[in-house]
Amino acid sequence: MNTDGLSINLATVRQQWNLREAVEACARHGIKAVDPWRDQVAAIGLDEAVRVIKANGMRVTGYCRGGMFPAADRAGQLAAIDENKRAIDEAVALGAECVVLVVGGLPKGSRDINAARQMVMEGLMAVLPHARAGKMPLAIEPLHPMYAGDRACVNTLAQALDLCDLLGDGTGVAIDTYHVWWDPDLASQIARAGATNRILAYHICDWLVPTRDILLDRGMMGDGVINLPHIRALVQKAGYLGFTEVEIFSAENWWKKPGDEVLRTCIERFNTAS
Amino acid sequence: MNTDGLSINLATVRQQWNLREAVEACARHGIKAVDPWRDQVAAIGLDEAVRVIKANGMRVTGYCRGGMFPAADRAGQLAAIDENKRAIDEAVALGAECVVLVVGGLPKGSRDINAARQMVMEGLMAVLPHARAGKMPLAIEPLHPMYAGDRACVNTLAQALDLCDLLGDGTGVAIDTYHVWWDPDLASQIARAGATNRILAYHICDWLVPTRDILLDRGMMGDGVINLPHIRALVQKAGYLGFTEVEIFSAENWWKKPGDEVLRTCIERFNTAS
Repeated sequence: MNTDGLSINLATVRQQWNLREAVEACARHGIKAVDPWRDQVAAIGLDEAVRVIKANGMRVTGYCRGGMFPAADRAGQLAAIDENKRAIDEAVALGAECVVLVVGGLPKGSRDINAARQMVMEGLMAVLPHARAGKMPLAIEPLHPMYAGDRACVNTLAQALDLCDLLGDGTGVAIDTYHVWWDPDLASQIARAGATNRILAYHICDWLVPTRDILLDRGMMGDGVINLPHIRALVQKAGYLGFTEVEIFSAENWWKKPGDEVLRTCIERFNTAS
Repeated sequence: MNTDGLSINLATVRQQWNLREAVEACARHGIKAVDPWRDQVAAIGLDEAVRVIKANGMRVTGYCRGGMFPAADRAGQLAAIDENKRAIDEAVALGAECVVLVVGGLPKGSRDINAARQMVMEGLMAVLPHARAGKMPLAIEPLHPMYAGDRACVNTLAQALDLCDLLGDGTGVAIDTYHVWWDPDLASQIARAGATNRILAYHICDWLVPTRDILLDRGMMGDGVINLPHIRALVQKAGYLGFTEVEIFSAENWWKKPGDEVLRTCIERFNTAS
């Protein structure tokens, strides 16, 4: 089956394999691109991660993740900014095509989502020069509104694109079907993102009904209710020519299956249901 | 403590009491308004429900719920329309101030959210003459996007207000903090709703971090991350003078506590945290 244009976000097989094993497995299945997470890189070391990825000829369609800008105090904000600069440096070393940003939710004890959003803007402005110097695009990923409290206070594509408009060159968006499929403005905002060349990544998985866990119950493409071919058509019509990255957090299902079976299923559903 | 302006959505104590017991308990605590659910009314019979509510001098700030318009076939759509007409008739009998509409998600087997949204519009158009004849306002409740698949494909206040603009007199919105608190457009859309006199109900509860269940883990005001005083100020500034209705689905916490303790806590937090 076709694997052209398919990338595997390595969170999808994080319980089965370390980064080296996952990259080698992807290569074995004919997959030509991956998106590793920082903890996966740290577990085997950056140099070894770079070596494994280059040895297997993998493209790196993104690096997960930067962000998490809001903090309870100024010291926390500055620490987050430093951490993002390190993430950018690692992404450069890995040859990643962007750093994916999960921007962060409310600081502990806060109920002020507007202040959190302001801290995201400040954090982005602070790291952007470093990202531009490394020619590393920052992909703001709007997360589903159910993560507004604890993970990301950027919750719609429109909001992410508004940030890009303010920040300018070197910023864009990661569009993940799981986070945006419900949005009544989805078609118009994807078109807007395309018209400004801001689609840096396209992630797919499915929304299960019922959803049994707010974080770790994402579905394989075809097992849920998202019209993935429709969204793909919108993204392609908007001019996006990049990879389609499968990213599935699934504690009770896919994380418990053999990694090879997961990859085979990703390839099959990439061809038949996305 | 003050109970003026406080209404209790009777789902909040549904595991503790039947409708008669719940209404009498509310009266005992000095609460002057309730919002019953259809199954609670059915359990004791409509006539008895009307009698209990009148005997206790309760206002009925809403009737939960109508909606659920999308269906797998035309027969299902027509059945939903009939069901909504019955809900409207019951609301009239109860003296309710509006029927709250949870519009429905995707029909079983469907992945076409745009078609579901079209069916919602068709259903609303079909029941609106009946609602107008009974002088019963229809309150479209935008539900959190995490319910787009199975409960409601109207997911933002803007989207609900767009529907009202199309439908005209006799329609409005129910604003529930749980569903809308994350919305980057919240302030502007509440102002828009007020400017067109479309705020028919204001529901409150809190968003817990972490949220352990996608449906039944809503928080008591003050226990979560929603800035309730801020949203109340927005709603009041928009000209809403109606009741504030507490609606909490909490299978593992509040539904397991004695009903009197729940009502006492609702009153306290209504005064101190909303």
